[in-house]
Amino acid sequence: MYSAPCPSRAALDRIADKWTALIVGQLACGTRRFGELRDEIEGISEKMLTQTLRSLERDGLVSREVHPVVPPRVEYRLTELGLTLDGPLAAVREWAEQHINEVEQARLRYDAGA
Amino acid sequence: MYSAPCPSRAALDRIADKWTALIVGQLACGTRRFGELRDEIEGISEKMLTQTLRSLERDGLVSREVHPVVPPRVEYRLTELGLTLDGPLAAVREWAEQHINEVEQARLRYDAGA
Repeated sequence: MYSAPCPSRAALDRIADKWTALIVGQLACGTRRFGELRDEIEGISEKMLTQTLRSLERDGLVSREVHPVVPPRVEYRLTELGLTLDGPLAAVREWAEQHINEVEQARLRYDAGA
Repeated sequence: MYSAPCPSRAALDRIADKWTALIVGQLACGTRRFGELRDEIEGISEKMLTQTLRSLERDGLVSREVHPVVPPRVEYRLTELGLTLDGPLAAVREWAEQHINEVEQARLRYDAGA
């Protein structure tokens, strides 16, 4: 993946992404509708949510199910492949939660010395 | 971190990043000079490498040591905090290596049906 044209570089580009980490984390808790994800992930725009869900669907990580009711109900869930990604991304999310204080202190020190 | 103003969201934004994952992975192998990182991480521009290293230094994840020789030799290494990040990011890199074939097959299926 350290070689630019290697396909795994492109895969890393997709999954090493803040919005992917947050969406996969929510879908790991269960099926979600678009509006539920939008409300649960504060600050994500509808455009970014639409784009990221479509990329995840294209990559085979998320499936999209349309229920033929009026109005149509659309639900998103992790595929089997998507479920395998939750472990690694959960570790990254947990690192951010656990070490945010140290990161913030380092920033204060850096900015004070700059 | 699902709350937009939460500091851990900002931390996630920094670490859930392709270039961060690749740079931290190289520094986990040992101290590196700027030019070594540039050569090892194909496709990264000098500007992006400079920016990402500076952010990692500000976040307390990377330290920068200037050796007073002529010309000055500058070396980068992971701090203790940075070393704790390598495990989670290694899991993400490994996922990309292990599952790239499934992702590529999913993309072909998706594009064929689109």
